[in-house]
Amino acid sequence: MGETVSNKQVILKDSVTGIAKESDFEVTTSTICLKLPESSGKGVLVKNLCLSCDPYMRILMTKTDLYFPIDFYTPASVIFGYGVAKVLESGDPNLKEGDLVWGVTGWEEYSVIEDPQKLFKIHHSDVPLSYYTGILGMAGMTAYFGFYDVCCPKKGEYVFISAASGAVGQLVGQFAKLLGCYVVGAAGTQQKIDLLKNKLGFDEAFNYKQESDLNAALKRYFPKGIDIYFENVGGKMLDAVLGNMRAHGRIAACGMISQYNLEKPEGVHNLLNIILQRLRVQGFEVFDYYHRYSEFLDAVLPLIRAQRLTYVEDIADGLDAGPAALVGLFSGRNVGKQVVAVAAES
Amino acid sequence: MGETVSNKQVILKDSVTGIAKESDFEVTTSTICLKLPESSGKGVLVKNLCLSCDPYMRILMTKTDLYFPIDFYTPASVIFGYGVAKVLESGDPNLKEGDLVWGVTGWEEYSVIEDPQKLFKIHHSDVPLSYYTGILGMAGMTAYFGFYDVCCPKKGEYVFISAASGAVGQLVGQFAKLLGCYVVGAAGTQQKIDLLKNKLGFDEAFNYKQESDLNAALKRYFPKGIDIYFENVGGKMLDAVLGNMRAHGRIAACGMISQYNLEKPEGVHNLLNIILQRLRVQGFEVFDYYHRYSEFLDAVLPLIRAQRLTYVEDIADGLDAGPAALVGLFSGRNVGKQVVAVAAES
Repeated sequence: MGETVSNKQVILKDSVTGIAKESDFEVTTSTICLKLPESSGKGVLVKNLCLSCDPYMRILMTKTDLYFPIDFYTPASVIFGYGVAKVLESGDPNLKEGDLVWGVTGWEEYSVIEDPQKLFKIHHSDVPLSYYTGILGMAGMTAYFGFYDVCCPKKGEYVFISAASGAVGQLVGQFAKLLGCYVVGAAGTQQKIDLLKNKLGFDEAFNYKQESDLNAALKRYFPKGIDIYFENVGGKMLDAVLGNMRAHGRIAACGMISQYNLEKPEGVHNLLNIILQRLRVQGFEVFDYYHRYSEFLDAVLPLIRAQRLTYVEDIADGLDAGPAALVGLFSGRNVGKQVVAVAAES
Repeated sequence: MGETVSNKQVILKDSVTGIAKESDFEVTTSTICLKLPESSGKGVLVKNLCLSCDPYMRILMTKTDLYFPIDFYTPASVIFGYGVAKVLESGDPNLKEGDLVWGVTGWEEYSVIEDPQKLFKIHHSDVPLSYYTGILGMAGMTAYFGFYDVCCPKKGEYVFISAASGAVGQLVGQFAKLLGCYVVGAAGTQQKIDLLKNKLGFDEAFNYKQESDLNAALKRYFPKGIDIYFENVGGKMLDAVLGNMRAHGRIAACGMISQYNLEKPEGVHNLLNIILQRLRVQGFEVFDYYHRYSEFLDAVLPLIRAQRLTYVEDIADGLDAGPAALVGLFSGRNVGKQVVAVAAES
């Protein structure tokens, strides 16, 4: 018999059409018995420490027949996403009480995770634990494999990154600089532009909201064209980039955040350039790289420890602040990786 | 002193906006002295035997600042394109009188080709010479390298081809069948559908002009989705295909004939599927494969001789019929590879 405690939860009221709003969610308090139910088999009971806000979560709020490799959210239920958690009780022989893990968990104080095989055990806690929602988690692997594997970058190439100060973009830019590329980022506020240029080491950055002609902006920063585009936004930006790619350029299609709140995605017109410039547009999902996590850690942890890689986080305090933090991604309210801190480790 | 003879020529009157029409061209008769000018250096004088009508030629009629790897046509001048010709006089030590060649030549009876290094010498004339404008020329290499190199096909995969009875599509379908794929083609008349199913060995074919809902048509022929799309048309068809691709599918972007007569290309909306299904969209240009011509010939010639590969040609008679044949590509008037026969070999 475990102790029964209150369990604050973030509930999606109903499927979302159009722009996701804070009011699409409800923060309620349920109770939970801090003891694994008999039926839970190899499940684990965890205390959630921090949660990750990621753009793909908008897609899970939708009611659609679109194929998607993750289950959609169930209306009137707790939402889920990546997070860092501490194991309170484990039915899985690979995990024990007190272990720290990251992976998919509920947006609540305590969760029972039925399928803990998918969790990653945290072995290095000399870095902030929140890093495992970002630079050392899904976003970090997305940036690392998306850049090095999908983009096939070479020293000296011209690299453009949209949503450049976001969870993934800020890392892609730093990886590209470490390799010796020329790197330009686009973001939506002056604060983010300053961050990109002064803290994250981008060669140039511009505020796309202040450019009436994205094509002209790209020509200004890339008079010789773009070799690599790391695509996080889609729509008009993708269209403008397609018109400015160099021969044999590569587009890593990672996300299209500008499209997720639209009922019908914008039309993209410049696709003929894919042929004329022999471009490769490669969609990828980070799940396909999860088996290479240790290779990733071996590369990235030393860079963090040597302060050759920086990570900007935007930490919202508590589950009550979760819905606003999550929907804030789509208006660009966050500066850097958006995290929701749920509880302290101890 | 050579003989001076009349030289019929096809002239593009002016840059074309919108739909190219027969009246955008003029067939005139000039004269030519059948002797290489002193100034021609390593040039060759040729008699043109047959000419190729290719969709990319529409792009060359445009006045645009778009990058294109070939020179645009000059208004009030003879147009050029791929053709088969006989050498009458050669300043190039690698070519001699009587040699047969294929490559870029003028739309006229006789041409002086300044840069004969780019011509391919024809060594096998046991097949129709017109084949070197198609199956054994640019279209054949496009189909061969586009399918085997760009699509990375595997036995049993589901392959869809648009403009399927055209110069390239009919070959891609046959290559895919030889490999053991399931192959469906789209074309625009019942005659072409019959050809695809009864003569070219496609598993299925449909008339896209009779489908009010392309998405539904694709779902009918590909209930499990498409692994490989060989893209020849662009626009609405591409949009529908994007919604029906399977995970890790490949799109070889070869041409977008539906878009070449539009002042602004249609918008394509389903690009998010590139990410969700981890698709690779790869543009390519056959020029990048020209150094592998002998490898191609070694593979394809035996298939032709063994009648394991068929080629459907639509041969227009004489330069006077050239403009109509060329613009007919864009309304789908041609059945199979469109050729213009200019002269007999002797």
